[in-house]
Amino acid sequence: MAGDFATDGAALGAPVTAPPRPVAQSGMAERGEPDEPAPAQREGVTFPEGFEAAGVHGGIKRQRPDLAVLFAPDPCSAAAVFTTNRVKAAPLIVTREHLERSAHRVQAVVINSGNANACTGERGLADARAMAVECAGLLGLQPDQVLVASTGVIGVPLPMDAVREGIRRACSELSPFGAEAAARAILTTDRRVKQTHLEVPLTGGRVVRIGGMAKGSGMIHPNMATMLAFLTTDAPVEAGPLHEVLRRATDASFNLITVDGDTSTNDMAVLLASGKAGGAPLAPGTEDFDRFSEGVRQVATYLAKEIARDGEGATRLVEVRVRGARTEHEARLCARAVAGSTLVKAAVHGQDPNWGRIAAAAGYSGAEMDPGGFSIWIGSILVAREGREWPFSEQAVREALGRDEVHLAIDLGTGGRAEATAWSCDLSEEYVRINSSYRS
Amino acid sequence: MAGDFATDGAALGAPVTAPPRPVAQSGMAERGEPDEPAPAQREGVTFPEGFEAAGVHGGIKRQRPDLAVLFAPDPCSAAAVFTTNRVKAAPLIVTREHLERSAHRVQAVVINSGNANACTGERGLADARAMAVECAGLLGLQPDQVLVASTGVIGVPLPMDAVREGIRRACSELSPFGAEAAARAILTTDRRVKQTHLEVPLTGGRVVRIGGMAKGSGMIHPNMATMLAFLTTDAPVEAGPLHEVLRRATDASFNLITVDGDTSTNDMAVLLASGKAGGAPLAPGTEDFDRFSEGVRQVATYLAKEIARDGEGATRLVEVRVRGARTEHEARLCARAVAGSTLVKAAVHGQDPNWGRIAAAAGYSGAEMDPGGFSIWIGSILVAREGREWPFSEQAVREALGRDEVHLAIDLGTGGRAEATAWSCDLSEEYVRINSSYRS
Repeated sequence: MAGDFATDGAALGAPVTAPPRPVAQSGMAERGEPDEPAPAQREGVTFPEGFEAAGVHGGIKRQRPDLAVLFAPDPCSAAAVFTTNRVKAAPLIVTREHLERSAHRVQAVVINSGNANACTGERGLADARAMAVECAGLLGLQPDQVLVASTGVIGVPLPMDAVREGIRRACSELSPFGAEAAARAILTTDRRVKQTHLEVPLTGGRVVRIGGMAKGSGMIHPNMATMLAFLTTDAPVEAGPLHEVLRRATDASFNLITVDGDTSTNDMAVLLASGKAGGAPLAPGTEDFDRFSEGVRQVATYLAKEIARDGEGATRLVEVRVRGARTEHEARLCARAVAGSTLVKAAVHGQDPNWGRIAAAAGYSGAEMDPGGFSIWIGSILVAREGREWPFSEQAVREALGRDEVHLAIDLGTGGRAEATAWSCDLSEEYVRINSSYRS
Repeated sequence: MAGDFATDGAALGAPVTAPPRPVAQSGMAERGEPDEPAPAQREGVTFPEGFEAAGVHGGIKRQRPDLAVLFAPDPCSAAAVFTTNRVKAAPLIVTREHLERSAHRVQAVVINSGNANACTGERGLADARAMAVECAGLLGLQPDQVLVASTGVIGVPLPMDAVREGIRRACSELSPFGAEAAARAILTTDRRVKQTHLEVPLTGGRVVRIGGMAKGSGMIHPNMATMLAFLTTDAPVEAGPLHEVLRRATDASFNLITVDGDTSTNDMAVLLASGKAGGAPLAPGTEDFDRFSEGVRQVATYLAKEIARDGEGATRLVEVRVRGARTEHEARLCARAVAGSTLVKAAVHGQDPNWGRIAAAAGYSGAEMDPGGFSIWIGSILVAREGREWPFSEQAVREALGRDEVHLAIDLGTGGRAEATAWSCDLSEEYVRINSSYRS
């Protein structure tokens, strides 16, 4: 799974605009799961005002929850970004249609796990539309006001009886406290629930809330490599600017994680804005808009890192920072290449201070670099400078490579000032163990 | 390791020109190793007239052979292609210099394994030059007539005493029967020697010979992902056309194998032509030139497939054929993406008829495809047609996925007629086993 969403060009003219400033975060769950099961918690996608959610078992999977509904009693502005894969699953096509037909004003998202409804031809399109119709009927909406997402096996028709059963159950269980159940029902082989939320204080004392949930875990997850993310906010934002916020947040988060390198047919990220925080719509170019935009980026980044951390067999999150690039586009290319290199990931797992693999991955990334001018850090330790080894404590580097979050950094030495960060995980299995200690 | 050589654009205007016609092959070793150790065999790089070789242990590695010399008593036309990685190891830089300074007329190649001499700064360049100087001195050549190649760990200076010792020993053992020893000395974690040779009958009764050896094995081979290939021929071919032949052969072979997706700092392929077969130089546009060119492509393809087959833990060669593409460039992009997909490779290993992953990989490859018009075959069995599942015998497909050579094919359905083939191997380790049976 590599997040790879079409957002009209990954190279942004300007970086995410909000400068470092205190953005209050409350309840940013460390692991996406509360320490103790609080029975009725406003969290995740239902933390912002104006949202209800439910997650149930409909029967697509044998036992685990497989159907979630996210519902807004009043219409929301809506934005979505989709996979760049040329094969787009039926729910993506239907979601795009519904966004257009509803003029980006929607009230619900219906999501199933266990079956991707991809490569299913006309029947798949009819099934995805039927999911929206079923959900709309139960909630008193027009079908165009319902978005649809699916994740699971490709090429197998949806078991529609089970899907309908799940939609009925979910719609009967909708509540402002249903976020955790919804976040659970969208999972496939994920090892844990991924959700978060935060508050953003605006200039006039106003506070807006942002929540989100995601699924995605990678490495070698047959057909399960899909990344889905659903973000909500009660900030008042019109659809156009909302899309721009989602696009930028996606480019700085989901598009910068790489687990197994494959781009799914079903990847999708959605952002709904209820406006329930009140006040005038946040307008691009204002301080408040920038704070909101930064909040969305933070939620998206948190979820993206959780996905990277959840790679099958992964024991560590790997964060790759690139600086000294000519352009932000090249910085991102390089960060993704290093984070995605199987050789780098094997080195991290083996705690092997093998900086040459980082240099090699940067070298083939497509980013300009100075072969005699780059520098590399593992943790905070300089290991290469001016393109060759810099004396370092092997023990200290091994320790840095053994942490839960491993930080790698490379300065490309081009004289440029562009930067980027990407995330991945280590490669932890036996076949890696065999090969991850070449140097020692 | 993904072969990824700069050959002035992977998209060729015209495909390799030779139409299917009998090209006599003699002694194409099935596994690159003779069944019984023949003491004095003209094979591999010394099968063509005008070449000697040796492979010895110099001391770079603890025990195994680590230094090879390929020598031509008379000057040869020479061509080489190099990694596209922006970080190019010192031997590549020196080889390029020597090719230019000698006007592409050289007499030797010196190759060490165990140390890549990459990211070693000025000292690395000096060491690579010293290897050529040492070799030239012993063989009575100018240093510019010696090409240099290295493979092994990155970022560590060459142990020059051991390298010099190896060069001295190799130069004293040069012989027309030294091909196997040379092919062995260039290996790193490869599980077997990779060499082959063939004869090409030309129109007037003339016969030319082509030989080759390679190293490369992938998956997760820390720093060992380098691909080196050395081809020889006794055909009379001038350096310009020779380069074109090598470039085309590389694009159709080494550039179409993908094992772990990384492109090494040291990848290099060299082709030397001694002219000892006699006669007028083979001229582009003639029947004879096409036959020769096709012979080089066959040798390169054989070596490339051997590399793909030798991926760590690999149990099967995977061959991916793409047709119905708009252009040959797109066909190759798609073939490489499918062959390189970890999800596809896991499916092959698990004998899981999961054609959806093939469709998904084709979809993100960058090649144009018709989501409602593509077809997929596993072995010879049609499994998807017009973008969705076609009824097939699961048992038959499982059998096709269990063969030593697994054939996958996809017609992109664009109406275009371009085709390509790429090679890879399955993913066989425990962590794949856990995840490769999602559908069952």
